[in-house]
This record gives sequence, structure tokens and C-alpha cells, in this order.
Amino acid sequence: MGRPKSGATPRGRPGTSGGKSGESAALEALRRRLPGPPPGEVWIGDDAAVLGPAPGVLLLTTDMAVGGVHADLTLMSLADLGWRATAGALSDIAAMGGRAAHAVVAVAGPPSTDLDQLYDGIAACAAAHRCPVVGGDLSTGAEIVVAVTVTGRVPGGPGPVLRRGARPGDRLFVTGPLGGAAAGLAALRAGRRAEPGTERLVEALCRPRARLAEGEAARRAGATAMVDISDGLATDLGHLAEASGVGFRLDAVPVADGATLDDALGGGEDYELVLAAPDPDRLVAAFGRAGLRSPIPLGRCVDDRAERTLAGDPVPALGWEHPWGSSP
Amino acid sequence: MGRPKSGATPRGRPGTSGGKSGESAALEALRRRLPGPPPGEVWIGDDAAVLGPAPGVLLLTTDMAVGGVHADLTLMSLADLGWRATAGALSDIAAMGGRAAHAVVAVAGPPSTDLDQLYDGIAACAAAHRCPVVGGDLSTGAEIVVAVTVTGRVPGGPGPVLRRGARPGDRLFVTGPLGGAAAGLAALRAGRRAEPGTERLVEALCRPRARLAEGEAARRAGATAMVDISDGLATDLGHLAEASGVGFRLDAVPVADGATLDDALGGGEDYELVLAAPDPDRLVAAFGRAGLRSPIPLGRCVDDRAERTLAGDPVPALGWEHPWGSSP
Repeated sequence: MGRPKSGATPRGRPGTSGGKSGESAALEALRRRLPGPPPGEVWIGDDAAVLGPAPGVLLLTTDMAVGGVHADLTLMSLADLGWRATAGALSDIAAMGGRAAHAVVAVAGPPSTDLDQLYDGIAACAAAHRCPVVGGDLSTGAEIVVAVTVTGRVPGGPGPVLRRGARPGDRLFVTGPLGGAAAGLAALRAGRRAEPGTERLVEALCRPRARLAEGEAARRAGATAMVDISDGLATDLGHLAEASGVGFRLDAVPVADGATLDDALGGGEDYELVLAAPDPDRLVAAFGRAGLRSPIPLGRCVDDRAERTLAGDPVPALGWEHPWGSSP
Repeated sequence: MGRPKSGATPRGRPGTSGGKSGESAALEALRRRLPGPPPGEVWIGDDAAVLGPAPGVLLLTTDMAVGGVHADLTLMSLADLGWRATAGALSDIAAMGGRAAHAVVAVAGPPSTDLDQLYDGIAACAAAHRCPVVGGDLSTGAEIVVAVTVTGRVPGGPGPVLRRGARPGDRLFVTGPLGGAAAGLAALRAGRRAEPGTERLVEALCRPRARLAEGEAARRAGATAMVDISDGLATDLGHLAEASGVGFRLDAVPVADGATLDDALGGGEDYELVLAAPDPDRLVAAFGRAGLRSPIPLGRCVDDRAERTLAGDPVPALGWEHPWGSSP
């Protein structure tokens, strides 16, 4: 969740789509200092770290939300901030096809912070995703910061789904229509919270769901690569394509009711999953058996890494870019 | 590490020693919202959460350090802050008798932050404790916040050592002399960094070591309760005594060279371990076999929960108290 989203200005920059964001570059600076993982493990670079040998694989991920950066607290409640921070970490587990196990939550903020409200949102999100909070830390600080760390397991079937396994010809899917969170933020900013039709968009923004069941179904149905859409489809699908060494040819992008195509491509924080699968029938059948909304086809992966098109045109370079500069 | 230590003022308050700090009360407010653990697990309330059935027990703990609260960045470097945040989380694993497995690190700060320096300290501390950093997150924020989450394992021998297992008659030990970190901070504040003899104190403050080997040796040698000294001996031993339902009678407290007894009782952040053991000979022998400095005897646990004495006098109510007020 390292990208300033709600309460910040989107900055679509030419060449950003699929490129390494400032945050990724900064984390790369951390990775370079560290020893690399043993065979079979994945450390920095995917949605979550993959630790230990199968079948006891442990997933581990951490996500930080800052009041005023990730959530405009004049528009959203502290409970919303707590929910969103928790959902963001859970979504990283979903993007590996994992099952969330446990969460710990560290909070900093001024002593005047309404911790009850913040904890209500954290606890409600954890309960909704069946991921108990088992520990925490609390500190004073000038601004409200919530860091949520989640562990996950990968029970049965294939191992975790990384970003890098997509191959040319694989079909691309997304677990739901996109842009709802961005449209919800726009509605709140415009003072349209009470208008008909906006309730669902505000819910998408303030109470996003991590697609844990969908991620696990996709893993079991042979998904080759998967990522959660936290920074916008253009950026996150770009990460998947870059890691896999493929391009992509999209036929259409599903747009949430009340949102625009730009919201869908660049809005981020919808926390739907985008995934590649060689056998679309198997994928759709698996979602059906699990009682899940059918995954929505986007297009396919192509051999030409330079191709990133939507209905024949280049995908606009929309998406959120972290202000951290590249480290040397 | 929820207590403002370096760069903040110690606040010894009557009745604080052994009582529930503001932070503990606030975390209790989180715990009350959450389901309780299944039998055999420990969630909120000890140094680290204890998850899953033996022998595959997983320890999980998170610790947050805030620039200006936990480290005065006019006196310490960003690398020191990174080291200390990492050591604080590792120390929680040590206090369970665990072996550190993996760490993830979330950082917030202004874009001008020298991430290279911060990451240098984190990476150096992780390497010194053989705990690889496997993931991270990065966000913009007004102040520098580092949240470190560490997993641990409990290989061989008895299970994790909780705070609550001490019994009347158990002997109390500490893994090293105390007060060095507090004396180091005083030296830095007084501009005495370059004076002879202060180097070791500054090292104790800026580069503390988590006592992982000592914690594991104590667990295997039958320690009944253990806690790390992050808030000062008076406070942390008070937590152990309260959880165990015992009092304590101390004969003497080992004071680090250059520190005072008040530093040792209330200074905190030394990250030594205080522990209870029914068989002192076995404990000392185990430390010897492991090539560790012999644990230093403090005194013993007593049946009278109200007794908290040092050489016959009440232990002064020193220690760091978190400014978070009690939640209703």
C-alpha cells in the first residue's frame, strides 16, 4: 500500500505503466543489501514473501497506511483507515492464492487518537476475512500510521501464484469490475456521499474486500501469475507482465457502475485480482464450483513484451506513482 | 517498543511499577474486540504471539519505532534508528526463548529521507542476528516510522517461555548488567560522545543486541517465565510478576559501568532478558555450555504479590510510561 492514493493526486506519467515505480526502486535498494532467498523461496519482489518448503509454506507480507496519505481523514473515518490498512495486507495474501492465517497491527498516532474507532475498523476487517489479530504495538507519533502484517498458508493444490509465471497465450482475467474505489473518492470529494448510487462506490473505497476465496480458487485452477490491483490495472498488470517477460493485448476492461475507464485503468485500491491462466474453462468452472462471481476476461498475454494494448491502442500510462525517487 | 524512550523524558510515577501501562491498556482495548486464542496459543499479552500446535509453533511480533519519539535523530543516525527498531522486534522473540526466522519492514517518511542509511542499519541488525529481511513496504509520511515484524520458531526442548509461569521460590536472573542504554543517551545529550568510556554506552544505546542465544538457552534449561527489558527492570519485572501472580525480592541489581542504579531500574532499552528459573545450577550450566556470559542472579520470586523489594526496600517506581491513556 505504499502509494498515496486517496487524498493524494493521481499522477499518470508517460512511461510509468509497467515500469518500476519509485517505491519498487527504493525497496530494490533494500533487497540489494540483503542475502537472497534459498531455492524455492521468494523474498522481496512479489505480493508476499514465500517462506519454507512445501507443504508448510508460510506467506508473510506487511502493509503501511498513513492518515492523510492513504486516507483523507476529512472524508473517511478512522475505522475506514483501519479497515483499509488491514484489507491491503490481506489482499497481498489473496494475490498469492493463499489463505490468511494471522495478523499483527502496529499503530502510531497522537495520544488524542480515537483508538476505539481505529481498532473497530481493524477488528471488523479481520473478522470479515477470518484472519485473527494476534498482537500489536502502539506508539505516539505526530500522524496516524497503521502497519499491518499478515501471515498466510497455502493449503493443498499447487504452490503460491507468483507474478512471474505468465506465458504468451495465457488468458488474462480480473475478479471484478474496476474503478469503484476511485469513483467513490471522487464522490466523497464532491460532497455527493448521500446521492443515490454512490453508496456502493463509497463502500468500495472505504471497505474493500480482499479476494481471498477468488485467489485460492485461481491457484487451484492453474493460474500462472497473479497480482492484486492496488495501484491501478495499468500499473499492476504492467508489473505482472514485466515479471513474466510478456506483453498483453486487452480486449476490454470492466468498469464499475458509476466509474470511468480512467478510474478503472488508473484508480487503484479496488483490490480485485488480475491473473493469467492457460485454461480459461477450468478457471471459470472452478469459480462456479466455489460459488464465486465468474472471473471477467480481459484479453491475453503475448510474446512481444513491448505490446501493451487495449482494443488495439496503447494502454494509457495511468496509475499511481510513489514519490520516492530511485535509489542509486 | 511502544514507549518513548530516547529523546523523551522518563516519567517515574508512583504506582506505575508493575502496573499496566497506558500502552498495555490501549492494546487491551484491541484485545477485547477480538476473539480469543484456541487452547495452546497465546495472542495479545506476551512478548510475541504463540501460534499453531507444537512442534511447529510460530512466534509473531511487531514493533514500531518513530523518529523523534524512540530515537532523537539529532543524536542518533537513521542507521541507528533502523538497527534499534529491528533489535526491538528480535528481542521479543528472544524473550519467548525462540529463534528468529524472518523479518518484514514497513517504513514511512518524507521523500527526503536517506533510505540508504536507514536500510543499512536494518540490514546490519538483521544480519547480526541471522534473521533475513524478506519483504517490506514504503510510504510517504510526515515523520519517519519503522515497523518491524519478526517471525520465530521454537526448535527442540520445552515450548515458548511466557511471562506467566514464574512460581514462588523461583530464582530471578538477568542476562547482563543494566542501564547502559540510558547512560549512553545521557552521554549523547551532554555532548560527551567522544569521552573515554562512553563508547560502550553509546553502543548499548544505538546498537543493542537481542539476547536470542540467551533466551533459547534459558528455555531449554527450564526457565518458567521471561521478559525482555525494554521499559526498565522495575516495569518489565513488574509485568512478569503480575502475569505470574507472584512478588519478588531482589538482593542486588547489576549496573552497567558508567550507569546509575536509577538507569538500571528505569532506563529501559537495554534488551537484556529477565527470567525466573527453579533450578539455578541447571541454568548457569546451560549458559556455560553454550559459551554465554553467566546469567546474573537478582533474587527470587515470593508468594506475596505485594512484595516488590530491593535489598529490603520497595523497588522505586521507575520506568517508562506510555502517554496513551487507558481506554474505557
